Amino acid sequence: MAPDPSPFASRSTPAPPAAADPALAALPLAAWTRDLRPSTIAAMMGHMARPGVISFALGLPAPELFPVDDYVAAAERVLRSDTGALQYRAQHLPLKEQVVELMARRGVRCRAEQVFLTTGAQQALALLARLFLEPRGQVICERLVYMGFQQVIEPYQPRVLPVASDLETGLDVDRVEKHLRDGARPAFIYCITDGHNPLGVSVSLEKRIRLAELARTYRVPVIEDDAYGLLHYGDPLPPLRAMEDRWVFHVGSFSKVMAPGFRCGWAVVPEELVPMLGCAKDGADIDTSTFAHRLVSEYLRAGGFDAHLERVRGAYRERRDAMLAALARHFPAGTRWSVPRHGALVWAELPEGFDTGALLMPALEGEDVAFVPGTAFSFDGRGGTRGMRLNFSFPPVAQIEDGIARLGRVIRDHRPRAAA
Amino acid sequence: MAPDPSPFASRSTPAPPAAADPALAALPLAAWTRDLRPSTIAAMMGHMARPGVISFALGLPAPELFPVDDYVAAAERVLRSDTGALQYRAQHLPLKEQVVELMARRGVRCRAEQVFLTTGAQQALALLARLFLEPRGQVICERLVYMGFQQVIEPYQPRVLPVASDLETGLDVDRVEKHLRDGARPAFIYCITDGHNPLGVSVSLEKRIRLAELARTYRVPVIEDDAYGLLHYGDPLPPLRAMEDRWVFHVGSFSKVMAPGFRCGWAVVPEELVPMLGCAKDGADIDTSTFAHRLVSEYLRAGGFDAHLERVRGAYRERRDAMLAALARHFPAGTRWSVPRHGALVWAELPEGFDTGALLMPALEGEDVAFVPGTAFSFDGRGGTRGMRLNFSFPPVAQIEDGIARLGRVIRDHRPRAAA
Repeated sequence: MAPDPSPFASRSTPAPPAAADPALAALPLAAWTRDLRPSTIAAMMGHMARPGVISFALGLPAPELFPVDDYVAAAERVLRSDTGALQYRAQHLPLKEQVVELMARRGVRCRAEQVFLTTGAQQALALLARLFLEPRGQVICERLVYMGFQQVIEPYQPRVLPVASDLETGLDVDRVEKHLRDGARPAFIYCITDGHNPLGVSVSLEKRIRLAELARTYRVPVIEDDAYGLLHYGDPLPPLRAMEDRWVFHVGSFSKVMAPGFRCGWAVVPEELVPMLGCAKDGADIDTSTFAHRLVSEYLRAGGFDAHLERVRGAYRERRDAMLAALARHFPAGTRWSVPRHGALVWAELPEGFDTGALLMPALEGEDVAFVPGTAFSFDGRGGTRGMRLNFSFPPVAQIEDGIARLGRVIRDHRPRAAA
Repeated sequence: MAPDPSPFASRSTPAPPAAADPALAALPLAAWTRDLRPSTIAAMMGHMARPGVISFALGLPAPELFPVDDYVAAAERVLRSDTGALQYRAQHLPLKEQVVELMARRGVRCRAEQVFLTTGAQQALALLARLFLEPRGQVICERLVYMGFQQVIEPYQPRVLPVASDLETGLDVDRVEKHLRDGARPAFIYCITDGHNPLGVSVSLEKRIRLAELARTYRVPVIEDDAYGLLHYGDPLPPLRAMEDRWVFHVGSFSKVMAPGFRCGWAVVPEELVPMLGCAKDGADIDTSTFAHRLVSEYLRAGGFDAHLERVRGAYRERRDAMLAALARHFPAGTRWSVPRHGALVWAELPEGFDTGALLMPALEGEDVAFVPGTAFSFDGRGGTRGMRLNFSFPPVAQIEDGIARLGRVIRDHRPRAAA
């Protein structure tokens, strides 16, 4: 596959990679791979590796806040205390119990028997799709949605029943209800309740209550992706799982609050689903790294996590505020943006006529600044044209101010003809 | 799901777990899950955890041979040298280059661009199936085959075209050829060339040459599972990938030679498949633990691996020999077994009339000794009735001698009526 000049152009180009490469075309690949698009995340990693680039592109934690000494100490204690950390092993019960405690802080009551540990939140999504989604089955989700979720469902060639999103209250629950009233029986509804990726919004309380009710009434599972749930700035609302314990499958993660590199996520599900997730996981990777999961558990046990989480929340809140202030200063009149109460992402929507996909290369090459254009989050590459996803957890405040100013210049220099 | 009195009985019982549990039946699970069977590996882990049990059941490395000090040192160096080890990251190029060097020792020439790193060999199998296997597609594999491979393909509800196996020369290549001549065009042929799981056999040179030729002639991929490839006792034969570099996808692992707990495996594939594996992996788990993969790479760089591998091979050869000698002493006349030149598994086949499934509970409860009955490795739970899979890498020599003697007593006490 030749590197694409723009990592996102391929989303609207007619020739997908499999068909375009004669060497690949000669291999008897499954049909779904013909629609495969190069990975956005992988493409952005290449760009970000260039020195001097200010990146708002990926949802990475701030590396300078990693408690490295504590991780080193936990790693050594785990390796020296029990060779079980190096073997295949049943899921680590103490870590499940620690998840139960963390869930309680999110307002969710659950038991260790309802917790299933995964290779990051991503694997929880993949395994739940495996258990519920038939080939060419139905899924309800937002038009603009986490790309990793699209990658989960793509191989099933699903029929996606889309719903719109509101930048202040989240997904359009009226539209969800209309789909269901009209007879849709999707494998599941996908919902990022807090710190939406890419929109940065948290779903309003009223919509949460209604969505939980719809799941119960229509007996349709909701997969609640709570990857950013522990990163809140202010008083969080209860997750959907707090309102409905049977039809809501909750997915959480240590990636954003400890480190992505440990690949430690979880699902909270009805207890009888846990052995089925176990079978699906056996097929996928047998185990997550026992070592990494025990390291996470040992770090939590040692007691530094609460202070670390407070430090991270404080730093990210400051970065969020710096970004919102910079947007007000440097982006054109008529731009709208979300004000995240959770997570690490702001969605900025430029005025009518802009196409953020056309701004990416000038931003990267002319101003050394990276973001993700909104179309990357759309199933058909059409929605989100005026949007950009901006991460505020990775760059320090000074870089945020500088980078948003640079983006402001790119936008000013590339005003659409009608608006000029 | 209620715990099953025998972890394997369910393989032939008519009521699968999903249908049997009313709570599960109420959930809108995908159809394939109705055939889901409890995980053998998970079930055996529970049994093995009981103190005093001598286990021949799982393919675990010997924990007393783990170079723990070296792993602790590598973990600390990795964590302190670069916060990248804690982030999402592009696959670690130095580790790919180290894989290239290891493959050269296996007689395989490849380039880093053809190497894709995975969460253990298991994930490589799962991702390759994702790319090549259509729902209800065809697969050629042996009747008795690694259970994890069955778990990979089960969700696709495939049509399996079975081939028999010979305990001295491996899979029946004549039958593979007949399937292909009769018009079968499977998504792939699955082959464990060395240290077969569960049979312990390595495929003969003549069969290797013919299988590589068939793949090339019929343009059918072979997935070559080489999880035990680096554990050889004597002069190894070249893997299939050494004979065919386009149609053979080679899968390797550090799990058996370093530790399963790092989840470090790889695939060697045509270069143009690597980005497609990347897309499939993004959907599955985004990344393997960057930290664990860099730890493996740092350990290899530090230079202790060769001596460690020699030590492990020496110890396992001694254990294998102890097991073969004990089988000759304690198992009844007419028992056949494989003499493994690779890996960690011996297959023992009892005389006509025995059913090893019926011996498992007496062995566990009466003699505190565990093995895996042969039917666990059969797609329909019918083949392998007289077989038992015996692992020799985990228990020390004294336990092997004691455990095989115990198994001999169980067999003597449970002779089938006709043979008594």
